[in-house]
Amino acid sequence: VGLPRQAVTPSGSVGATPGRLLVDGLQINDWSREILIEAKDGGLSCVHATCAVWEDARATLSEIARWMQRFAQHDDLVVHAVSTADIVAARESGRLAIVLGFQNTSPIEDDLSLIEVFARLGVRVMQLTYNIQNYVGGSCYEPHDGGLTRFGSLVVGEMNRCGMLVDLSHVGPRTSLEAVEASTVPVAITHANPLWFHDASRNKTDAVIQAVAERGGVIGCTLYPLCTGGAERTLDEFCAMVERLAGLVGIEHVAIGSDAARGWPDTHVQWLRNGRWRPPENGEAPAWPEWPEWFRGPAQFGALIQALVDRGFSEAEAAAVGGGNWMRLFGQTFAGA
Amino acid sequence: VGLPRQAVTPSGSVGATPGRLLVDGLQINDWSREILIEAKDGGLSCVHATCAVWEDARATLSEIARWMQRFAQHDDLVVHAVSTADIVAARESGRLAIVLGFQNTSPIEDDLSLIEVFARLGVRVMQLTYNIQNYVGGSCYEPHDGGLTRFGSLVVGEMNRCGMLVDLSHVGPRTSLEAVEASTVPVAITHANPLWFHDASRNKTDAVIQAVAERGGVIGCTLYPLCTGGAERTLDEFCAMVERLAGLVGIEHVAIGSDAARGWPDTHVQWLRNGRWRPPENGEAPAWPEWPEWFRGPAQFGALIQALVDRGFSEAEAAAVGGGNWMRLFGQTFAGA
Repeated sequence: VGLPRQAVTPSGSVGATPGRLLVDGLQINDWSREILIEAKDGGLSCVHATCAVWEDARATLSEIARWMQRFAQHDDLVVHAVSTADIVAARESGRLAIVLGFQNTSPIEDDLSLIEVFARLGVRVMQLTYNIQNYVGGSCYEPHDGGLTRFGSLVVGEMNRCGMLVDLSHVGPRTSLEAVEASTVPVAITHANPLWFHDASRNKTDAVIQAVAERGGVIGCTLYPLCTGGAERTLDEFCAMVERLAGLVGIEHVAIGSDAARGWPDTHVQWLRNGRWRPPENGEAPAWPEWPEWFRGPAQFGALIQALVDRGFSEAEAAAVGGGNWMRLFGQTFAGA
Repeated sequence: VGLPRQAVTPSGSVGATPGRLLVDGLQINDWSREILIEAKDGGLSCVHATCAVWEDARATLSEIARWMQRFAQHDDLVVHAVSTADIVAARESGRLAIVLGFQNTSPIEDDLSLIEVFARLGVRVMQLTYNIQNYVGGSCYEPHDGGLTRFGSLVVGEMNRCGMLVDLSHVGPRTSLEAVEASTVPVAITHANPLWFHDASRNKTDAVIQAVAERGGVIGCTLYPLCTGGAERTLDEFCAMVERLAGLVGIEHVAIGSDAARGWPDTHVQWLRNGRWRPPENGEAPAWPEWPEWFRGPAQFGALIQALVDRGFSEAEAAAVGGGNWMRLFGQTFAGA
């Protein structure tokens, strides 16, 4: 696969400190000190971490407060990053950079002005919908995706202005295409795979992937079993998917967003699946899916990128997929207008 | 009246730019462009502006968002200040600095962690109670003030840490004394007068004033008619009160907090008086009190300070009361621990 020069330049300091600058496009762990260490052990310099899924504005404030306490409590290990400069500085100080993001627009409710408020609190990524239609658009699970709403169009513009990256991972196909059009800067699919790799509502059509890539965005290939086909998937098959996707859209648009969900009890799946919008599933005990033995959590992130090199990726290509492409996109979007 | 050297040093640049560096310790206007201009016309470099009174966390976010929009819309005229350096810089650029504050702890509800969240959003002052008892302590209007609560003691400590100035203006006498004790840094009475000047629940006992001053705090003498005795009060009587208070506690502890309330219709008084805690007053049409002709709003702030000079205050003394003392206290508290 070819590698445009642009793709590795932004990571810059790859040669300056040992190892690759690795960035995971999304993790949704229940972050304890042990799991922060797991991420560092996996060689990661930066993780985009979810801090709201179904929460409204008030509940999100408490989640952000918990993150502030976590940053203070583990300041030897982790730092809140709101820019690529912060990520580079964290790496130089031997710490893990965390970019905070939402997997829903529920934190802003129907209030456009809250985008700037949360941006000022250091939130840098927002997914336009989680698993149900909201004020902004249709989700990937709706039978009919009506597209980006009038409010949604304003939301995308305000996110562009305030330096919040648009994430389309759980978003429906029509809303996704219209959001790519509405955004003045490149957007992300932080954690999803192509439909041709595994046929699931959460995965993406060629049209959406192509649109995101054409406008300079990045697709984070994901390890979440629902999006890969399950624990039986081999590392080789996953790497082949990354390689094929890079061949189709250009390696500068391909990265990893593992969707690692470490530390949660099975009961947390109920919350993620049902929120407050539908009753708990009857007679069904929700449980986390089984992960493949080659990716059970962030500690194996570095090994996954090494597997790409073993497969024949050049060092520069592995650096781009492993972190450089996210760094370029973060640099293009986090500063705002 | 004597003037300790300490009192004028912090304002520093008084000689560097024309006119005194004037700071109003509290205004609660409905801030339009016209009223921002009024404040500048009054010679003010900085105003501590109220952005929440009865609002809970969610409603306060919208109030803060409105301020962000106001700062952006009038950025030729006004700037959000979170430090004394910001105030000096605003003055040098010919703009009015606004310090945002709450007149209640309602924005943090019963959640200690929200102090840091609002501090990060740039809120630098919080009054422990408005007109009724809350989670933190007793107000000046309660028949019995039970003192600073256990939560209140934690709130004061967290405010010290996060760089939020403790304001005791509407706070009951026992809670005030206990808050002075609890705080590791000086505190403020941003807008109240001594009881000996006018006998009203909102004014302060000698014990509270003495305690605030002894610990290095500042008392902002106020123009609000309820605290002065009404529109018939003369400028001369007000200046005599400032002079007597300076003689009692030291001029470095005396400043002005006008409580200017420009731009609101009479219906807003209903909200301030009753919030959601009691029914509207029956048969009574609430109305703003009449202000004295020598202080109808922020445009007359500079003239008020000039009246102190005309009375015999030295230029340094007028600079201390007019802004230097607030600058010193802001410098001691806004950076946090």
